[in-house]
Amino acid sequence: MLENMFDPDSVAVIGASRKEGKVGRAVLENLMQNSDLKIIPINPNSDEILRLRCYPNITAVPGENKADLAIIVVPARMVPDAVNECGMAGVDNIIVISAGFKEAGVEGARLERECISLCDKYGINMIGPNCLGIIDTASGLNASFAANRAFEGNIAMMSQSGAICTVTLDWAERTGVGFSKFISLGNKAVLAENDFLQIFENDDTTAVIAGYLEGVKNGPEFIKIAQRVSRSKPIILVKSGRTSVGSRAVSSHTGTLAGSDAAYNAAFKQGGVLRADSLEEMLDYSRAFSVCPLPEGRNIAIITNAGGLGILTADACYNAGLSIASFEENTVERLREKLPPAANFYNPVDVLGDAGADLYEHALKVVLDDINVNGIIVLVSPQSMTDVSEIAEKVAEKIKGSKKPILCNFAGGSRIAAGEDVLNKHGIPNYSSAERAVASMNALCNYHSIKHKNPEIPAVLNADKEFARNFIDIASSENRRTHGLESMDILKAYDIPVVDSRIANTLPEAIKAAEDMGYPVVMKILSPDISHKTDVGGIRLDLEHADDIERAYNSMMSDVRHYMPDAEITGVQLQKMISGGKEVIIGMDRDPQFGPLLMFGLGGTYVEFLKDVSFAVAPISESEAKHMVSSVKTYPLIAGVRGEEPSDIDSIIATLLKVSQLVTDFPEILEFEINPLMVMPEGQGCVAMDIRFTLNS
Amino acid sequence: MLENMFDPDSVAVIGASRKEGKVGRAVLENLMQNSDLKIIPINPNSDEILRLRCYPNITAVPGENKADLAIIVVPARMVPDAVNECGMAGVDNIIVISAGFKEAGVEGARLERECISLCDKYGINMIGPNCLGIIDTASGLNASFAANRAFEGNIAMMSQSGAICTVTLDWAERTGVGFSKFISLGNKAVLAENDFLQIFENDDTTAVIAGYLEGVKNGPEFIKIAQRVSRSKPIILVKSGRTSVGSRAVSSHTGTLAGSDAAYNAAFKQGGVLRADSLEEMLDYSRAFSVCPLPEGRNIAIITNAGGLGILTADACYNAGLSIASFEENTVERLREKLPPAANFYNPVDVLGDAGADLYEHALKVVLDDINVNGIIVLVSPQSMTDVSEIAEKVAEKIKGSKKPILCNFAGGSRIAAGEDVLNKHGIPNYSSAERAVASMNALCNYHSIKHKNPEIPAVLNADKEFARNFIDIASSENRRTHGLESMDILKAYDIPVVDSRIANTLPEAIKAAEDMGYPVVMKILSPDISHKTDVGGIRLDLEHADDIERAYNSMMSDVRHYMPDAEITGVQLQKMISGGKEVIIGMDRDPQFGPLLMFGLGGTYVEFLKDVSFAVAPISESEAKHMVSSVKTYPLIAGVRGEEPSDIDSIIATLLKVSQLVTDFPEILEFEINPLMVMPEGQGCVAMDIRFTLNS
Repeated sequence: MLENMFDPDSVAVIGASRKEGKVGRAVLENLMQNSDLKIIPINPNSDEILRLRCYPNITAVPGENKADLAIIVVPARMVPDAVNECGMAGVDNIIVISAGFKEAGVEGARLERECISLCDKYGINMIGPNCLGIIDTASGLNASFAANRAFEGNIAMMSQSGAICTVTLDWAERTGVGFSKFISLGNKAVLAENDFLQIFENDDTTAVIAGYLEGVKNGPEFIKIAQRVSRSKPIILVKSGRTSVGSRAVSSHTGTLAGSDAAYNAAFKQGGVLRADSLEEMLDYSRAFSVCPLPEGRNIAIITNAGGLGILTADACYNAGLSIASFEENTVERLREKLPPAANFYNPVDVLGDAGADLYEHALKVVLDDINVNGIIVLVSPQSMTDVSEIAEKVAEKIKGSKKPILCNFAGGSRIAAGEDVLNKHGIPNYSSAERAVASMNALCNYHSIKHKNPEIPAVLNADKEFARNFIDIASSENRRTHGLESMDILKAYDIPVVDSRIANTLPEAIKAAEDMGYPVVMKILSPDISHKTDVGGIRLDLEHADDIERAYNSMMSDVRHYMPDAEITGVQLQKMISGGKEVIIGMDRDPQFGPLLMFGLGGTYVEFLKDVSFAVAPISESEAKHMVSSVKTYPLIAGVRGEEPSDIDSIIATLLKVSQLVTDFPEILEFEINPLMVMPEGQGCVAMDIRFTLNS
Repeated sequence: MLENMFDPDSVAVIGASRKEGKVGRAVLENLMQNSDLKIIPINPNSDEILRLRCYPNITAVPGENKADLAIIVVPARMVPDAVNECGMAGVDNIIVISAGFKEAGVEGARLERECISLCDKYGINMIGPNCLGIIDTASGLNASFAANRAFEGNIAMMSQSGAICTVTLDWAERTGVGFSKFISLGNKAVLAENDFLQIFENDDTTAVIAGYLEGVKNGPEFIKIAQRVSRSKPIILVKSGRTSVGSRAVSSHTGTLAGSDAAYNAAFKQGGVLRADSLEEMLDYSRAFSVCPLPEGRNIAIITNAGGLGILTADACYNAGLSIASFEENTVERLREKLPPAANFYNPVDVLGDAGADLYEHALKVVLDDINVNGIIVLVSPQSMTDVSEIAEKVAEKIKGSKKPILCNFAGGSRIAAGEDVLNKHGIPNYSSAERAVASMNALCNYHSIKHKNPEIPAVLNADKEFARNFIDIASSENRRTHGLESMDILKAYDIPVVDSRIANTLPEAIKAAEDMGYPVVMKILSPDISHKTDVGGIRLDLEHADDIERAYNSMMSDVRHYMPDAEITGVQLQKMISGGKEVIIGMDRDPQFGPLLMFGLGGTYVEFLKDVSFAVAPISESEAKHMVSSVKTYPLIAGVRGEEPSDIDSIIATLLKVSQLVTDFPEILEFEINPLMVMPEGQGCVAMDIRFTLNS
């Protein structure tokens, strides 16, 4: 029973200690905060610890005292025995706090695997090893050695780093932020983020899910679970190791194989996860979600007693993609009624430096009533006349009853502190800068869209899977790993249109092929060793007669031999020349954590430098495919600009879905690229012109 | 004597008051903090205020008591008289705190102009109107109505918003940050940012210059002064109204005409100004500069007691463009000597969660000694064993003696507070997040480059200025404002190569022109009404015979009449067809604050969507021209990639300098664009293919 993990009647501490400064003592003391809890210290050298009856090991605990949860703090080498004894004693839930496992090298990794086997054998739910423990403020369980208190609240937090748990709890203690559940994930040997996402989903005391991750254990499952959970509760995650430099640090830290950041970005987006760029941002967002209703749109009003702050905040809104709301006439009139004549009645509303709480209250009330306003940011600077506490009281009152989100930036230090205290007392976040308030407002707006979008159901298409199966099996049996033009048939099996083309091994064959399909044609070199054909003179365009073919064939062979004397040349391919289309690229790479990562971008050299491509983890839904296409910056070029004809975007979307299915059906395909896919004007489809893929060995 | 503004022997307060809550009282009280200062209240209704002898007006003050500085707080309509009286009484320096001037409408603007005339007449230095006043902590002058104390320090701050002065002082009071001079600029009617940059430059107590601006008064001068000042002291500025939304707020706030953000970015860059994106960032940077030596490179070491924090910080370094330093072998060995075996001896150094101050001290000492390390970020999380204060003491000690910058992120809340207090006591900044510490470290690194780069001396070139003068004069007299292909001669005058081209008004003329210059040729429509020739069928390429010319001429005329029936067509232009080059664009727009803003980018439709262009304010130096070219993302395309020939980049730079000179010489040119400039392979120059410019009326 996993529920017993969070709300046990009795808890054993294996490795309990009476020594100050020992983890085994800190855990006991934290557990003892709950006077209703039965606590069973386990230590072979004591009969009693902190006035609790102590047992030599967990199997010695009499049946009627059976623990619902065991916390293990003994040295790593003794942990497998302890886990085994828990199994024998019928304990379902354990938390292994001890370090010295996978993160510590080969021997540690072996010990960890041993624990996993034992958990499998007995059906034990295990958190850790190498963690700080867990806290459930609703049940009153503090099964951790954290030195900080945790307040009750509606934020559930999980963290792969114990230190970040500590930092967060310490920050929360100062700001008064509360948590429903607080989980230190440790090495995630058994239970991991996917389990906790589902626990948080079903936990009535949790309204907001936050987390710090260095990797995910099961990427594809993660996307599915997050997609579901994010419809009912916001998921806000920091993922570290974003960069190659950072990734190296991750490996040395917890041995997690960090996925590429593009894959994480795609997976988080597909899963409806709000990705925070820093710990601070995660905490900022979480606080906003913990108190605010969701905004119905992106039109923001600003109320300030300082023009300069108003401008900076408007700048921040614009940068974040939020709009500055235009007020109804009535709003302006009502503001004018009470605010002094020199005030600004338009957005940002400037109540002026000497404004008291009454003016803030009036402005807030009026602006909240405006149907064009979806959210409000309140700025307060400590002018000489400003009664910061009174303003904070009035603002807090409004926030509590509001159906629109209101976030505050009380800006300053000494004289602002009293206002911050008032806000904290009411559980209302104060952001130390307008930019942070704006970023959190933006997160609220973004989540509104996530919550209300239709479920993503991966498209399932008919395809000649059997043909592809055979093709791959034969290639594998012949040990052919790298495939190009000659393997375009695999596209046909998935109903992807391919250019009419023939393979020729000699010049006469080439001429015959061209005449069979009709001029003009394109000639391309066929070689497993050549990936950039243009660079070695391996492409000739616009060939119109047999003479052209002859000239092109001879000069191509000579060029290619010149540039790549060692390349194996298997012949040439002749393709029907296609003009009037635009080139795009559809590709796939296997990400170690999420699997098939699809890529889309426009063809051409620019794209390479500007990295203007989009990603998604396959299998994708139709709306995800649409989003991939429309989210590249060069989208206007295919959507049609300056009188140019729009391209057949529907055919690109269809092709993306077919590729998504192909690479999902065949995990043997390691890398895959259609380059170019020639997209014709609207209604005229698209054609794959070249292909390159690699099979695993 | 401007020095008397900051260190006066006697100060008059015009509008002094004894009433609590009045600005005239707050100013008096603040002045009285300095017991050595002679203070003269001016108020016709009192003989004595706060035990100071009061005069009815400043001309009534006896000569031996003449004020070095007068602070004016009377209502706006009375200010011009007060300024006039100051002039008559021989007061050189005044601060007008009163509001109700330009920011308040037409009548206020009139009053402000009146004050400016009077200051001109008497040679008075005036700060304000509509400001909070000034503080000089070195001389002990507090000539403001600020409610906060200001501590002594080495940061000079100026702000165009009084409220932001207040917020900053309030923040500084809480964090213990000190200032040398603190200036509320107000409406900048007389003295403005350029004056204060020079005052700060020459002020021995100032090491760092910070500011909040909504605009600059004299853009070209600003760049020159900032270039000089930034060589000796860092200038850190927030400029608000970055965005169109924000800009609107600026206009309604202080009536400043906000320049385009691209111009500010370019001008700040050229002036060596570090642009902060927010008030918080400006304060963060200022604190770093106030205590840190400059790093000699961008290789950063991280010392942490928490792996997770180390990874997040490494991520932040990478994102900011900083490198994670690789340690010398000796460093790793020395770390290994004292740190526990499970610690990480590579960068980021993990001293582990139970590390005491001695381990931090050892790690800092060893890492500081490594010649590959240019700067260090110290992370401390409050683990159960962590003695935060002791670590703060040791770190503060190291920071004070260090020749390399060390920045701290003590992360957390309640239990971290004691460490923050220790750092504040030592005047050492603690950043509340690793990202903020990293951003500040990056600012230090960037300033190191600014400080050490060669002075930018705008290139001066020989040109046939007289030809251009005549050309423009004639065009103006004929009221021809918009110029295109037909005006390419102006480029020749500035020695910019232009394509061989002829103008033809009839088909026979066109054929003759083509035969004169030789085939192949390009034909372009000539019309003052058509800017995008391609869109209306106004360009035909690759014409090889008289037949081609005839066909092209007739179809072009019919196309253009079809698309733009009302366009005035003045004929066609025939140009020698140029192939083998790459198209780039050089343009210029007049920015309201900085004047001629040059633009560079590659040609083609992509650039339009990707906004991959660079800007600089003319006149530019050669290195600035180089930077313009190399800073676009598509630079590799002209620098030569994948075996493609590099383009003649020197000729682009030369053309940029020529255009810079042309648009500097002739302010009558409002907009200017060479599009395309065809750039040939390296060594083969470039050719202007088309041009478009507009003259003022």
